[in-house]
Amino acid sequence: MSTAAVPLPPGSVGCTQTQYLDLPDPLPLDCGRELKHIRLAYETYGTLNAERDNVVVVCHALSGDAHAAGISRDADVISALDGFGADERGISLKSATGWWDGMIGPGKAFDTDRYFVVCTNLIGGCRGSTGPGSTNPDTGRPYGLDFPVITVADMVRAERLFLQQLDIRRILAIGGGSLGGMRALEWSVAYPDEVVACIPIASTAQLGAQGVAWNAIARNAIMADPDWQDGYYYGSGRQPDAGIGVARMVGHVTYLSAPGMEQKFGRRLQERDDYSYSLREADFEVESYLRHQARSFAARFDANSYLYISRALTYFDLARAHGAGSLARAFANVTARYLVMSFSSDWLYPPRDSQEIADALRANGKHVEQHNIPTTYGHDSFLLNEAEQIPIIADFVARAHAAIRKH
Amino acid sequence: MSTAAVPLPPGSVGCTQTQYLDLPDPLPLDCGRELKHIRLAYETYGTLNAERDNVVVVCHALSGDAHAAGISRDADVISALDGFGADERGISLKSATGWWDGMIGPGKAFDTDRYFVVCTNLIGGCRGSTGPGSTNPDTGRPYGLDFPVITVADMVRAERLFLQQLDIRRILAIGGGSLGGMRALEWSVAYPDEVVACIPIASTAQLGAQGVAWNAIARNAIMADPDWQDGYYYGSGRQPDAGIGVARMVGHVTYLSAPGMEQKFGRRLQERDDYSYSLREADFEVESYLRHQARSFAARFDANSYLYISRALTYFDLARAHGAGSLARAFANVTARYLVMSFSSDWLYPPRDSQEIADALRANGKHVEQHNIPTTYGHDSFLLNEAEQIPIIADFVARAHAAIRKH
Repeated sequence: MSTAAVPLPPGSVGCTQTQYLDLPDPLPLDCGRELKHIRLAYETYGTLNAERDNVVVVCHALSGDAHAAGISRDADVISALDGFGADERGISLKSATGWWDGMIGPGKAFDTDRYFVVCTNLIGGCRGSTGPGSTNPDTGRPYGLDFPVITVADMVRAERLFLQQLDIRRILAIGGGSLGGMRALEWSVAYPDEVVACIPIASTAQLGAQGVAWNAIARNAIMADPDWQDGYYYGSGRQPDAGIGVARMVGHVTYLSAPGMEQKFGRRLQERDDYSYSLREADFEVESYLRHQARSFAARFDANSYLYISRALTYFDLARAHGAGSLARAFANVTARYLVMSFSSDWLYPPRDSQEIADALRANGKHVEQHNIPTTYGHDSFLLNEAEQIPIIADFVARAHAAIRKH
Repeated sequence: MSTAAVPLPPGSVGCTQTQYLDLPDPLPLDCGRELKHIRLAYETYGTLNAERDNVVVVCHALSGDAHAAGISRDADVISALDGFGADERGISLKSATGWWDGMIGPGKAFDTDRYFVVCTNLIGGCRGSTGPGSTNPDTGRPYGLDFPVITVADMVRAERLFLQQLDIRRILAIGGGSLGGMRALEWSVAYPDEVVACIPIASTAQLGAQGVAWNAIARNAIMADPDWQDGYYYGSGRQPDAGIGVARMVGHVTYLSAPGMEQKFGRRLQERDDYSYSLREADFEVESYLRHQARSFAARFDANSYLYISRALTYFDLARAHGAGSLARAFANVTARYLVMSFSSDWLYPPRDSQEIADALRANGKHVEQHNIPTTYGHDSFLLNEAEQIPIIADFVARAHAAIRKH
């Protein structure tokens, strides 16, 4: 089979392949332990210029990976594209396309004709970087729950070591949505001299009680599944598909908005005219949709990775870690300019959380630009409402680039 | 032990005991099957007057029961009260108190000096009325999943047969929150000549896509638990405690509001100064609170009942059942006056759903009074913000009573 058959949409970075890099040293972690033999999966788009001043880092969210743009060249993905529609794992042209493809490419928000765009898969994940499913060098078996609890700061430290391996010492712009925005914020605060522009989107400086609760429920659903086997399920032939399915369903509803779901599904029945009067049937379209989401997510995402990343989300607290409880104090030493974006219908990372970030930056007299974009897609807007974000981001990054070139 | 030791708060209806009544005939159900040997658990407060025109029916929500007011005289409850605080099932003076005790009693919203207040436990439940845990007369074993799928209309039909046994042919006022409000609405539409006043609180004429989704997730969590055993777990020594625990956690978060949770928990840690850096510990107060809610709910509520009631919630659609898709048409023949109440912070049964009910009634020229009460407790406001509701309801019911006495 040939990859030439894959039709490339205009503005695409083309076919891409995820690469891997091993960090040379162990990484000390917030929890007090260290992580050895870290491998990071990554992709890059565009060209690093001679001045090495055109680096853009894009940070993925909970279920994302290093494949941010273009069409994956990975064999299993491409083989699926030769068929019709999606295969049993839900792999299709859409799923083979990078998670932020609309934003990254020639002429796009992160313009690959001008910038060198880097995306790494976070540690703790299951998409190529070291995580709980990786081999524990001390035992020769998968870590399982022996994997150390990692934080957003740990993820950033690993990414920084990775960039140093590429001899990249300064980031022109770093951005991402949700957890990706947390990582961008952490980068700019922990390494204030290394970030020129920071773009947290649909993000927060810390989850509130409700956000902590959703994450607790998701973790609980996974750990309540007997197939989880206390986290040591690798190689057992059983994994907590049901538990992570419930976790994904909860997540999915929190990523959408009530009006958005109403528009998309309403109370439409799924291929039937009347109620089934049964407990097991998915009578409503939205019930069928959630089941599908649960199944396809369980097939592609490792439950332990979900637990670890969820814990990191919950622990992230910029004010606590860097400002002794004050968000304004946490931002005292940043040098980056900020573009803070939120979406009107996002109730999981609500606009008021972005407002809080902008307020704390302004209290320090920092450069901050802020946009609250009217949408109906809820938290998912950061992935879906790309058209509204592109001109704002393109302009912001271009001005940041011009500003450092002036010096 | 003596019940005299129980201190009765002022305005209490006193010690109460749930009673039981067997319906004489089988009940034909919406699903096409019929339910035989129906027993209903109920409590009454106050005195039925000679004119039989002072009947108030209060309708409980998903996890409620017939014990709406006063202190339960049930042996296990009273024995718990002799101890200190709550026993291992969470039984305490608070839990022995009826679920709407603040609203029902001498001088309260439903004034037991004036009205005869009736509360029945719905069919499909697990608090004394016939449900999936009851003995199937055809087999001599618990129904399990052989219990027929029931609807809100079926619940109302059973309650109507119950009232007929008490020779009650007209209801002065019927009210309740959430599912209780659905039952009140159904009563007023299905039996328009038998309801004088209807009080749906924090309710809806039909769940939207998000509400359907939350219910699907809860059911899925239960059915994904291997201890559910396809619904035939009675007597096996195992029941889906983990699954119903997850369902309850999801429910609980949807019953509160984000600002309310922020006020109550914030990001406070639970008896610790630093993160545990573990996946299993409940580091945050809100995590610990949810675990407690899950455990105590699993101990007191039958998982199959949760499934059946959740299905009924999802199926309820007043416009579909009575108006060929039009809510205005569904209300065309009602004779009741309506008091429609909602709470500003309720996003599960949001104020716009109450607005839709009021609009449809007004489109028919019906008598409707409407209050959207500012609160922070979310959907739970109907149980917690009693002080704001009491004068409104008391006045509304008194005027309804005066109106029928004039005739």
